[in-house]
Amino acid sequence: MSAVHTLQSAWADRRTMLSVGLEPCPEYLPASGEYEPTISGYESFMMSVVEGACSDVVPAAFKFNTAFFEALGPEGWSLLKRVRDRLPAGAVVIADSKRGDIGSTAKRYALAAFDWLGADAVTLNPLMGRDSAEPFLEYPGKLCIFLCLTSNPGSSDFLLRDGLYLRIARDVSAWAPTVGLVVGATHPARVAEVRAAAAGAVLLIPGLGAQGGEVGPVVAAALQGAAPPFAGSPGALFHVTRGVLPEAGDRGPLAEVVRRKCAELRASIADIVLRRPALKESAHA
Amino acid sequence: MSAVHTLQSAWADRRTMLSVGLEPCPEYLPASGEYEPTISGYESFMMSVVEGACSDVVPAAFKFNTAFFEALGPEGWSLLKRVRDRLPAGAVVIADSKRGDIGSTAKRYALAAFDWLGADAVTLNPLMGRDSAEPFLEYPGKLCIFLCLTSNPGSSDFLLRDGLYLRIARDVSAWAPTVGLVVGATHPARVAEVRAAAAGAVLLIPGLGAQGGEVGPVVAAALQGAAPPFAGSPGALFHVTRGVLPEAGDRGPLAEVVRRKCAELRASIADIVLRRPALKESAHA
Repeated sequence: MSAVHTLQSAWADRRTMLSVGLEPCPEYLPASGEYEPTISGYESFMMSVVEGACSDVVPAAFKFNTAFFEALGPEGWSLLKRVRDRLPAGAVVIADSKRGDIGSTAKRYALAAFDWLGADAVTLNPLMGRDSAEPFLEYPGKLCIFLCLTSNPGSSDFLLRDGLYLRIARDVSAWAPTVGLVVGATHPARVAEVRAAAAGAVLLIPGLGAQGGEVGPVVAAALQGAAPPFAGSPGALFHVTRGVLPEAGDRGPLAEVVRRKCAELRASIADIVLRRPALKESAHA
Repeated sequence: MSAVHTLQSAWADRRTMLSVGLEPCPEYLPASGEYEPTISGYESFMMSVVEGACSDVVPAAFKFNTAFFEALGPEGWSLLKRVRDRLPAGAVVIADSKRGDIGSTAKRYALAAFDWLGADAVTLNPLMGRDSAEPFLEYPGKLCIFLCLTSNPGSSDFLLRDGLYLRIARDVSAWAPTVGLVVGATHPARVAEVRAAAAGAVLLIPGLGAQGGEVGPVVAAALQGAAPPFAGSPGALFHVTRGVLPEAGDRGPLAEVVRRKCAELRASIADIVLRRPALKESAHA
């Protein structure tokens, strides 16, 4: 099943557009000390997150930020592969590595992500242009998600100048029947602009919850004018890592906290989508 | 010794600005079949290249294209580390990964490159702006080399439009006392433009030899108007991977072919630099 079909099913069957992050990051380990910052501690931690995230319904996606694995050396890469192989079917597996390089090098990165890891989707940096993405685009059924606009201060250095982020949105949309775009959640107005420039793209929107993005305006912005490949859905993946992890005051086992927070986020997003009159019917198509 | 000091010594003591690529790529293995496309075959292959490249004088840099190691899985990363640890002192070790991501993620990539691998320099993608580079820039003595202009067809998609490559050259030059810039060698006129926009930068110029860049005009372009941190030098690293490997007709052991081709390239570059009247004296300062 292609990545886009998997996302269609996630919405049609389970009403979820949630993407859950898996990162072996010491700061993300619960304060309880139950999980240690070791390879096996991280593995248990991530598998508890997976267990919690899948308790009610399997999320639309799991996203690996590969930098955190890379920093652990070769054992980190083995850990990545083991956790990937333990993920349930039904969720798109995203290798978030923001790769971007030319020809033969891009081919090797594509091989690493798709063949070695078995990811369904990758994040890519579009700066070097179309041919740098082609080795990824050539893999059938995979989804390429291009960096478009981020919410860090440095986004004003290049992405926001001369409307580069909108040119990226428009141009990369022509590179494949369906592409993805990374769009930071802290600026709903900009999410709307990107949506207007790339009606059919799957937006990957990080930053809900912990990073300060509010769910309502962002989901509405992603929805407005969308002609995504999965009818009735917001054509977007709402990504969360810290936002489903325990905060001060959260009690109980990790998996249970993650389950509850995923359920809440999933429901808020689905509510907003399903309340829109124009989409009510097509959502059930 | 800082990366910039190492480059200064490479020029002052050995008259070399050559960067030699180390890539476990099946197509780069000699047609003789002496080296197999296995982890141990790649290791022998790369160590023969290192041996040949260091026979006369140690080159200014060795550059690892990490994509080729990543595609081999965890064993590829172990291979990368082993080869890195066997490199002679005196050459700057570049991790060519073109990373670019925000805050905590960038920190992990920096940790992987500098702490885990022990690289002296990295290539970075500047698209996400200054704060995405800061975790790298904060490491004392390391050199950050930013993607500026490449020679692939896709460079016309974004980098060449609205002069983005020149804005990158100017802006990132202000991010640290000395930065590096990746500039494709097939357009000497553009090398000159980048040099004019970033007089003090260390240009990393790939594509000499096999990729079609001619030595003379490119070295001259890199030199013109340079105010690099290593006096009298072209303020540039001239990078070659395929260009020092055997072609049809090259006979003899791999290390000997590499030695001869490195010597020829080093000499052509040094000749052009030293023949420039304005630099003759300062080169010996």
